[in-house]
Amino acid sequence: MGYFITFEGIEGCGKTTQIQRAAQSLKEAGHRVVVTREPGGCPIADDIRAILLDAGNSAMVPMTELLLYAAARAQHVAEVIAPALAEGAVVLCDRFTDSTLVYQGFGRNLDRDLIARLNTLAAGQIRPDLTILLDCPVTVGLARAAARISSRQTNREERFEQESLIFHERVREGFLALACGEPHRFAVIDGNEGVEATATAVAGVLLSRVPRR
Amino acid sequence: MGYFITFEGIEGCGKTTQIQRAAQSLKEAGHRVVVTREPGGCPIADDIRAILLDAGNSAMVPMTELLLYAAARAQHVAEVIAPALAEGAVVLCDRFTDSTLVYQGFGRNLDRDLIARLNTLAAGQIRPDLTILLDCPVTVGLARAAARISSRQTNREERFEQESLIFHERVREGFLALACGEPHRFAVIDGNEGVEATATAVAGVLLSRVPRR
Repeated sequence: MGYFITFEGIEGCGKTTQIQRAAQSLKEAGHRVVVTREPGGCPIADDIRAILLDAGNSAMVPMTELLLYAAARAQHVAEVIAPALAEGAVVLCDRFTDSTLVYQGFGRNLDRDLIARLNTLAAGQIRPDLTILLDCPVTVGLARAAARISSRQTNREERFEQESLIFHERVREGFLALACGEPHRFAVIDGNEGVEATATAVAGVLLSRVPRR
Repeated sequence: MGYFITFEGIEGCGKTTQIQRAAQSLKEAGHRVVVTREPGGCPIADDIRAILLDAGNSAMVPMTELLLYAAARAQHVAEVIAPALAEGAVVLCDRFTDSTLVYQGFGRNLDRDLIARLNTLAAGQIRPDLTILLDCPVTVGLARAAARISSRQTNREERFEQESLIFHERVREGFLALACGEPHRFAVIDGNEGVEATATAVAGVLLSRVPRR
Protein backbone atom coordinates (compact mmCIF):
# COMPACT_ATOMS: atom_id res chain seq x y z
CA MET A 1 0.00 0.00 0.00
CA GLY A 2 1.08 3.57 -0.73
CA TYR A 3 0.72 6.61 1.49
CA PHE A 4 -2.15 9.10 1.27
CA ILE A 5 -1.53 12.77 2.10
CA THR A 6 -4.20 15.45 1.91
CA PHE A 7 -3.63 19.21 1.91
CA GLU A 8 -6.30 21.36 3.53
CA GLY A 9 -6.88 25.01 4.38
CA ILE A 10 -8.91 28.11 3.54
CA GLU A 11 -8.94 29.77 0.09
CA GLY A 12 -5.53 31.28 -0.71
CA CYS A 13 -3.65 29.36 2.01
CA GLY A 14 -1.09 28.20 -0.57
CA LYS A 15 -2.12 24.55 -1.00
CA THR A 16 -1.60 24.38 -4.75
CA THR A 17 1.92 25.81 -4.66
CA GLN A 18 2.92 23.70 -1.67
CA ILE A 19 1.61 20.47 -3.19
CA GLN A 20 3.81 21.01 -6.23
CA ARG A 21 6.82 21.60 -3.97
CA ALA A 22 5.99 18.57 -1.84
CA ALA A 23 5.63 16.38 -4.93
CA GLN A 24 9.09 17.51 -6.05
CA SER A 25 10.65 16.64 -2.66
CA LEU A 26 9.02 13.22 -2.62
CA LYS A 27 10.09 12.42 -6.19
CA GLU A 28 13.66 13.39 -5.32
CA ALA A 29 13.44 10.93 -2.42
CA GLY A 30 12.58 8.18 -4.91
CA HIS A 31 8.82 7.94 -4.39
CA ARG A 32 6.28 7.42 -7.11
CA VAL A 33 3.99 10.44 -6.63
CA VAL A 34 0.43 11.08 -7.84
CA VAL A 35 -0.90 14.64 -7.46
CA THR A 36 -4.65 15.12 -7.62
CA ARG A 37 -7.36 17.41 -6.29
CA GLU A 38 -10.96 17.60 -5.16
CA PRO A 39 -13.53 18.21 -6.33
CA GLY A 40 -12.36 16.63 -9.56
CA GLY A 41 -9.32 14.51 -10.34
CA CYS A 42 -10.90 12.44 -13.13
CA PRO A 43 -13.20 13.30 -16.05
CA ILE A 44 -16.56 12.48 -14.39
CA ALA A 45 -15.57 14.25 -11.16
CA ASP A 46 -14.30 17.23 -13.17
CA ASP A 47 -17.73 17.51 -14.80
CA ILE A 48 -19.25 17.55 -11.29
CA ARG A 49 -16.65 20.14 -10.21
CA ALA A 50 -17.75 22.45 -13.01
CA ILE A 51 -21.32 22.40 -11.66
CA LEU A 52 -20.14 22.96 -8.06
CA LEU A 53 -17.85 25.89 -8.78
CA ASP A 54 -19.98 27.68 -11.36
CA ALA A 55 -20.83 31.07 -9.84
CA GLY A 56 -24.01 31.03 -11.96
CA ASN A 57 -25.37 28.18 -9.82
CA SER A 58 -26.29 30.40 -6.86
CA ALA A 59 -29.68 28.62 -6.58
CA MET A 60 -27.93 25.42 -5.41
CA VAL A 61 -29.32 24.21 -2.08
CA PRO A 62 -26.85 22.96 0.59
CA MET A 63 -28.02 19.32 0.33
CA THR A 64 -27.40 19.27 -3.42
CA GLU A 65 -23.93 20.70 -2.89
CA LEU A 66 -23.12 18.09 -0.24
CA LEU A 67 -24.34 15.19 -2.40
CA LEU A 68 -22.39 16.46 -5.42
CA TYR A 69 -19.17 16.57 -3.39
CA ALA A 70 -19.83 13.01 -2.26
CA ALA A 71 -20.56 11.86 -5.83
CA ALA A 72 -17.35 13.42 -7.17
CA ARG A 73 -15.37 11.86 -4.31
CA ALA A 74 -16.79 8.36 -4.86
CA GLN A 75 -15.64 8.47 -8.49
CA HIS A 76 -12.26 10.02 -7.69
CA VAL A 77 -11.48 7.47 -4.99
CA ALA A 78 -12.54 4.50 -7.15
CA GLU A 79 -10.85 5.66 -10.33
CA VAL A 80 -7.69 7.45 -9.10
CA ILE A 81 -6.82 7.34 -5.40
CA ALA A 82 -7.49 3.69 -4.48
CA PRO A 83 -5.70 2.26 -7.56
CA ALA A 84 -2.66 4.56 -7.05
CA LEU A 85 -2.38 3.56 -3.37
CA ALA A 86 -2.76 -0.11 -4.31
CA GLU A 87 0.24 0.32 -6.62
CA GLY A 88 2.31 1.82 -3.80
CA ALA A 89 2.28 5.50 -4.84
CA VAL A 90 2.37 8.49 -2.50
CA VAL A 91 -0.88 10.30 -3.35
CA LEU A 92 -1.08 14.06 -2.68
CA CYS A 93 -4.64 15.38 -2.80
CA ASP A 94 -5.64 19.06 -2.77
CA ARG A 95 -8.69 18.97 -0.42
CA PHE A 96 -10.53 15.82 0.69
CA THR A 97 -13.12 14.79 3.30
CA ASP A 98 -12.02 17.42 5.83
CA SER A 99 -12.94 20.21 3.41
CA THR A 100 -16.45 18.82 3.14
CA LEU A 101 -16.81 18.58 6.92
CA VAL A 102 -15.55 22.11 7.34
CA TYR A 103 -17.19 23.99 4.43
CA GLN A 104 -20.55 22.24 4.63
CA GLY A 105 -20.56 21.54 8.38
CA PHE A 106 -18.85 24.50 10.04
CA GLY A 107 -19.49 26.89 7.11
CA ARG A 108 -23.06 26.01 6.08
CA ASN A 109 -24.19 24.44 9.37
CA LEU A 110 -25.23 21.13 7.81
CA ASP A 111 -25.39 18.17 10.20
CA ARG A 112 -21.81 16.94 10.75
CA ASP A 113 -22.81 13.33 11.43
CA LEU A 114 -24.60 13.26 8.09
CA ILE A 115 -21.53 14.72 6.35
CA ALA A 116 -19.30 12.15 8.04
CA ARG A 117 -21.61 9.34 6.87
CA LEU A 118 -21.57 10.63 3.28
CA ASN A 119 -17.76 10.98 3.45
CA THR A 120 -17.58 7.32 4.45
CA LEU A 121 -19.97 6.27 1.69
CA ALA A 122 -17.84 8.11 -0.86
CA ALA A 123 -14.35 7.27 0.38
CA GLY A 124 -14.97 3.76 1.70
CA GLN A 125 -11.88 2.44 3.46
CA ILE A 126 -9.61 5.19 2.10
CA ARG A 127 -8.53 7.62 4.85
CA PRO A 128 -5.62 10.08 4.78
CA ASP A 129 -2.45 8.83 6.50
CA LEU A 130 -1.37 12.46 6.93
CA THR A 131 -3.16 15.77 6.50
CA ILE A 132 -1.17 18.98 6.05
CA LEU A 133 -3.27 21.92 7.25
CA LEU A 134 -1.87 25.19 5.88
CA ASP A 135 -3.21 27.78 8.30
CA CYS A 136 -3.25 31.52 7.63
CA PRO A 137 -5.46 34.48 8.52
CA VAL A 138 -8.62 34.75 6.42
CA THR A 139 -7.74 38.25 5.21
CA VAL A 140 -4.36 37.04 3.92
CA GLY A 141 -5.85 34.02 2.16
CA LEU A 142 -8.69 35.95 0.54
CA ALA A 143 -6.30 38.67 -0.67
CA ARG A 144 -4.20 35.98 -2.38
CA ALA A 145 -7.29 34.34 -3.85
CA ALA A 146 -8.52 37.73 -5.13
CA ALA A 147 -5.15 38.40 -6.80
CA ARG A 148 -5.36 34.99 -8.45
CA ILE A 149 -8.84 35.73 -9.79
CA SER A 150 -7.81 39.11 -11.17
CA SER A 151 -4.74 37.56 -12.82
CA ARG A 152 -7.06 35.07 -14.55
CA GLN A 153 -8.77 38.06 -16.20
CA THR A 154 -12.15 36.50 -15.65
CA ASN A 155 -15.47 37.53 -14.18
CA ARG A 156 -16.28 33.97 -13.28
CA GLU A 157 -15.44 34.03 -9.59
CA GLU A 158 -15.71 30.69 -7.92
CA ARG A 159 -18.70 30.33 -5.64
CA PHE A 160 -16.84 29.90 -2.38
CA GLU A 161 -14.79 33.02 -2.98
CA GLN A 162 -18.03 35.01 -2.89
CA GLU A 163 -18.86 33.96 0.67
CA SER A 164 -18.62 36.40 3.56
CA LEU A 165 -15.59 36.92 5.79
CA ILE A 166 -17.54 35.36 8.66
CA PHE A 167 -18.07 32.20 6.59
CA HIS A 168 -14.34 31.91 5.93
CA GLU A 169 -13.55 32.55 9.61
CA ARG A 170 -15.85 29.65 10.53
CA VAL A 171 -14.06 27.52 7.95
CA ARG A 172 -10.63 28.37 9.37
CA GLU A 173 -11.82 27.60 12.90
CA GLY A 174 -13.37 24.36 11.66
CA PHE A 175 -10.08 23.14 10.20
CA LEU A 176 -8.24 23.97 13.43
CA ALA A 177 -10.91 22.14 15.46
CA LEU A 178 -10.52 19.02 13.30
CA ALA A 179 -6.72 19.21 13.73
CA CYS A 180 -7.13 19.42 17.52
CA GLY A 181 -9.34 16.35 17.44
CA GLU A 182 -6.88 14.23 15.41
CA PRO A 183 -3.39 15.45 16.28
CA HIS A 184 -1.71 12.29 14.97
CA ARG A 185 -3.17 12.67 11.49
CA PHE A 186 -2.90 16.44 11.16
CA ALA A 187 0.23 18.58 10.83
CA VAL A 188 -0.64 22.28 11.12
CA ILE A 189 1.83 24.45 9.17
CA ASP A 190 1.95 28.24 9.22
CA GLY A 191 0.92 29.32 5.72
CA ASN A 192 1.49 32.99 6.53
CA GLU A 193 5.27 32.80 5.95
CA GLY A 194 6.82 32.98 2.48
CA VAL A 195 6.59 30.10 -0.01
CA GLU A 196 10.13 28.89 0.77
CA ALA A 197 9.73 28.86 4.54
CA THR A 198 6.42 26.99 4.24
CA ALA A 199 7.87 24.50 1.74
CA THR A 200 10.75 23.78 4.12
CA ALA A 201 8.32 23.16 6.99
CA VAL A 202 6.17 20.85 4.85
CA ALA A 203 9.24 18.94 3.61
CA GLY A 204 10.32 18.44 7.22
CA VAL A 205 7.00 16.82 8.09
CA LEU A 206 7.03 14.63 4.97
CA LEU A 207 10.60 13.48 5.68
CA SER A 208 9.64 12.38 9.18
CA ARG A 209 6.29 10.78 8.26
CA VAL A 210 6.36 9.15 4.83
CA PRO A 211 7.93 5.67 4.99
CA ARG A 212 11.30 5.55 3.18
CA ARG A 213 11.61 3.77 -0.14
CA MET B 1 -51.19 21.66 -0.48
CA GLY B 2 -51.27 20.32 -4.02
CA TYR B 3 -51.16 16.70 -5.17
CA PHE B 4 -48.00 14.87 -6.23
CA ILE B 5 -48.20 12.16 -8.91
CA THR B 6 -45.19 10.24 -10.19
CA PHE B 7 -45.06 8.11 -13.34
CA GLU B 8 -42.77 5.08 -13.27
CA GLY B 9 -41.88 2.15 -15.50
CA ILE B 10 -39.18 0.62 -17.69
CA GLU B 11 -37.66 2.32 -20.74
CA GLY B 12 -40.25 2.67 -23.50
CA CYS B 13 -43.27 2.02 -21.24
CA GLY B 14 -44.95 5.18 -22.54
CA LYS B 15 -44.48 7.51 -19.54
CA THR B 16 -43.71 10.65 -21.52
CA THR B 17 -46.72 10.37 -23.80
CA GLN B 18 -49.05 9.44 -20.96
CA ILE B 19 -47.89 12.33 -18.75
CA GLN B 20 -48.79 14.78 -21.50
CA ARG B 21 -52.23 13.22 -21.83
CA ALA B 22 -52.74 13.18 -18.07
CA ALA B 23 -51.74 16.85 -17.81
CA GLN B 24 -54.32 17.69 -20.47
CA SER B 25 -57.09 15.82 -18.59
CA LEU B 26 -56.21 17.52 -15.33
CA LYS B 27 -56.09 20.99 -16.90
CA GLU B 28 -59.51 20.39 -18.44
CA ALA B 29 -60.76 19.52 -14.95
CA GLY B 30 -59.59 22.94 -13.75
CA HIS B 31 -56.34 21.99 -12.01
CA ARG B 32 -53.16 23.99 -12.13
CA VAL B 33 -50.68 21.40 -13.46
CA VAL B 34 -46.86 21.33 -13.35
CA VAL B 35 -45.13 18.68 -15.50
CA THR B 36 -41.54 17.83 -14.66
CA ARG B 37 -39.10 14.95 -14.84
CA GLU B 38 -36.13 13.30 -13.18
CA PRO B 39 -33.25 13.39 -13.35
CA GLY B 40 -33.49 17.08 -14.18
CA GLY B 41 -36.41 19.49 -13.96
CA CYS B 42 -34.35 22.62 -13.22
CA PRO B 43 -31.05 23.98 -14.60
CA ILE B 44 -28.69 22.56 -11.94
CA ALA B 45 -30.40 19.16 -12.02
CA ASP B 46 -30.34 19.20 -15.83
CA ASP B 47 -26.57 19.68 -15.69
CA ILE B 48 -26.38 16.64 -13.41
CA ARG B 49 -28.69 14.73 -15.77
CA ALA B 50 -26.27 15.36 -18.64
CA ILE B 51 -23.48 13.68 -16.67
CA LEU B 52 -25.71 10.74 -15.67
CA LEU B 53 -27.04 9.99 -19.13
CA ASP B 54 -23.85 10.55 -21.14
CA ALA B 55 -23.00 7.20 -22.71
CA GLY B 56 -19.34 8.30 -22.67
CA ASN B 57 -19.34 8.08 -18.88
CA SER B 58 -19.12 4.28 -18.77
CA ALA B 59 -16.43 4.50 -16.04
CA MET B 60 -19.01 5.79 -13.56
CA VAL B 61 -19.11 3.64 -10.41
CA PRO B 62 -22.53 2.72 -8.92
CA MET B 63 -22.03 4.88 -5.80
CA THR B 64 -21.30 7.97 -7.90
CA GLU B 65 -24.42 7.33 -9.93
CA LEU B 66 -26.55 6.94 -6.81
CA LEU B 67 -25.21 10.14 -5.23
CA LEU B 68 -25.73 12.11 -8.46
CA TYR B 69 -29.37 11.03 -8.61
CA ALA B 70 -29.80 12.14 -5.00
CA ALA B 71 -28.10 15.49 -5.69
CA ALA B 72 -30.29 16.20 -8.71
CA ARG B 73 -33.39 15.23 -6.71
CA ALA B 74 -32.53 17.47 -3.75
CA GLN B 75 -32.31 20.48 -6.09
CA HIS B 76 -35.43 19.54 -8.07
CA VAL B 77 -37.54 19.06 -4.94
CA ALA B 78 -36.34 22.32 -3.37
CA GLU B 79 -36.60 24.44 -6.49
CA VAL B 80 -39.60 22.99 -8.35
CA ILE B 81 -41.71 20.30 -6.66
CA ALA B 82 -42.06 21.62 -3.10
CA PRO B 83 -42.89 25.21 -4.18
CA ALA B 84 -45.45 24.00 -6.76
CA LEU B 85 -47.16 21.75 -4.20
CA ALA B 86 -47.15 24.59 -1.66
CA GLU B 87 -49.04 26.70 -4.22
CA GLY B 88 -51.66 23.97 -4.66
CA ALA B 89 -50.62 22.60 -8.06
CA VAL B 90 -50.95 19.02 -9.24
CA VAL B 91 -47.35 18.01 -9.98
CA LEU B 92 -46.72 15.22 -12.52
CA CYS B 93 -43.19 13.89 -12.39
CA ASP B 94 -41.60 11.51 -14.92
CA ARG B 95 -39.63 9.18 -12.60
CA PHE B 96 -38.89 9.83 -8.91
CA THR B 97 -37.58 7.92 -5.87
CA ASP B 98 -39.02 4.57 -7.02
CA SER B 99 -36.83 4.65 -10.14
CA THR B 100 -33.73 5.06 -7.96
CA LEU B 101 -34.77 2.17 -5.72
CA VAL B 102 -35.44 -0.02 -8.71
CA TYR B 103 -32.59 0.85 -11.11
CA GLN B 104 -29.88 1.13 -8.46
CA GLY B 105 -31.30 -1.40 -5.98
CA PHE B 106 -32.92 -4.16 -8.05
CA GLY B 107 -30.89 -3.38 -11.21
CA ARG B 108 -27.40 -2.71 -9.83
CA ASN B 109 -27.78 -4.57 -6.51
CA LEU B 110 -26.87 -1.55 -4.34
CA ASP B 111 -28.08 -1.71 -0.74
CA ARG B 112 -31.78 -0.77 -0.73
CA ASP B 113 -31.75 0.66 2.79
CA LEU B 114 -28.95 3.00 1.75
CA ILE B 115 -30.91 4.04 -1.35
CA ALA B 116 -34.01 4.65 0.77
CA ARG B 117 -32.00 6.83 3.17
CA LEU B 118 -30.56 8.87 0.30
CA ASN B 119 -34.04 9.22 -1.20
CA THR B 120 -35.23 10.64 2.12
CA LEU B 121 -32.25 13.00 2.35
CA ALA B 122 -32.99 14.30 -1.13
CA ALA B 123 -36.78 14.45 -1.05
CA GLY B 124 -37.29 15.39 2.60
CA GLN B 125 -40.99 15.34 3.47
CA ILE B 126 -42.10 15.19 -0.17
CA ARG B 127 -43.62 11.80 -1.04
CA PRO B 128 -45.84 10.91 -4.00
CA ASP B 129 -49.57 10.87 -3.25
CA LEU B 130 -50.08 8.58 -6.24
CA THR B 131 -47.70 6.62 -8.45
CA ILE B 132 -48.80 5.44 -11.88
CA LEU B 133 -46.75 2.38 -12.86
CA LEU B 134 -47.00 1.77 -16.60
CA ASP B 135 -46.14 -1.90 -16.92
CA CYS B 136 -45.20 -3.59 -20.19
CA PRO B 137 -42.95 -6.45 -21.30
CA VAL B 138 -39.27 -5.55 -21.50
CA THR B 139 -39.02 -6.50 -25.18
CA VAL B 140 -41.91 -4.16 -26.05
CA GLY B 141 -40.44 -1.26 -24.06
CA LEU B 142 -36.94 -1.64 -25.45
CA ALA B 143 -38.24 -1.88 -29.04
CA ARG B 144 -40.07 1.44 -28.51
CA ALA B 145 -36.96 3.02 -26.92
CA ALA B 146 -34.80 1.78 -29.81
CA ALA B 147 -37.20 3.31 -32.35
CA ARG B 148 -37.04 6.60 -30.43
CA ILE B 149 -33.24 6.58 -30.49
CA SER B 150 -33.09 5.84 -34.21
CA SER B 151 -35.61 8.65 -34.92
CA ARG B 152 -33.31 11.04 -33.04
CA GLN B 153 -30.64 10.25 -35.66
CA THR B 154 -28.00 10.11 -32.95
CA ASN B 155 -25.31 7.69 -31.88
CA ARG B 156 -25.45 8.93 -28.34
CA GLU B 157 -27.54 6.19 -26.77
CA GLU B 158 -28.47 6.85 -23.20
CA ARG B 159 -26.57 4.74 -20.71
CA PHE B 160 -29.48 2.76 -19.34
CA GLU B 161 -30.60 1.75 -22.82
CA GLN B 162 -27.28 -0.08 -23.23
CA GLU B 163 -27.95 -2.39 -20.29
CA SER B 164 -28.75 -6.06 -20.81
CA LEU B 165 -32.22 -7.57 -21.13
CA ILE B 166 -31.71 -9.25 -17.75
CA PHE B 167 -31.06 -5.85 -16.15
CA HIS B 168 -34.33 -4.49 -17.56
CA GLU B 169 -36.22 -7.62 -16.44
CA ARG B 170 -34.93 -7.05 -12.91
CA VAL B 171 -36.07 -3.42 -13.15
CA ARG B 172 -39.57 -4.42 -14.28
CA GLU B 173 -39.84 -6.96 -11.47
CA GLY B 174 -38.56 -4.35 -9.02
CA PHE B 175 -41.28 -1.88 -9.94
CA LEU B 176 -43.96 -4.59 -9.58
CA ALA B 177 -42.54 -5.57 -6.18
CA LEU B 178 -42.71 -1.95 -4.95
CA ALA B 179 -46.31 -1.72 -6.21
CA CYS B 180 -47.21 -4.90 -4.29
CA GLY B 181 -45.69 -3.40 -1.14
CA GLU B 182 -47.63 -0.12 -1.37
CA PRO B 183 -50.93 -0.89 -3.10
CA HIS B 184 -52.59 2.32 -1.86
CA ARG B 185 -49.97 4.55 -3.44
CA PHE B 186 -49.44 2.62 -6.68
CA ALA B 187 -51.81 2.19 -9.59
CA VAL B 188 -50.46 -0.38 -12.05
CA ILE B 189 -51.67 0.30 -15.59
CA ASP B 190 -51.14 -1.95 -18.60
CA GLY B 191 -48.76 -0.05 -20.88
CA ASN B 192 -48.93 -2.73 -23.56
CA GLU B 193 -52.24 -1.47 -25.00
CA GLY B 194 -52.45 1.41 -27.47
CA VAL B 195 -51.89 5.02 -26.41
CA GLU B 196 -55.64 5.77 -26.27
CA ALA B 197 -56.57 2.76 -24.16
CA THR B 198 -53.75 3.50 -21.71
CA ALA B 199 -54.66 7.20 -21.54
CA THR B 200 -58.26 6.29 -20.74
CA ALA B 201 -57.13 3.95 -17.95
CA VAL B 202 -54.82 6.62 -16.48
CA ALA B 203 -57.55 9.28 -16.68
CA GLY B 204 -59.90 6.95 -14.81
CA VAL B 205 -57.42 6.62 -11.95
CA LEU B 206 -56.76 10.36 -11.84
CA LEU B 207 -60.48 11.14 -11.80
CA SER B 208 -61.01 8.88 -8.79
CA ARG B 209 -57.90 9.93 -6.87
CA VAL B 210 -57.07 13.61 -7.38
CA PRO B 211 -59.19 15.82 -5.09
CA ARG B 212 -61.70 17.93 -7.06
CA ARG B 213 -61.12 21.67 -7.44
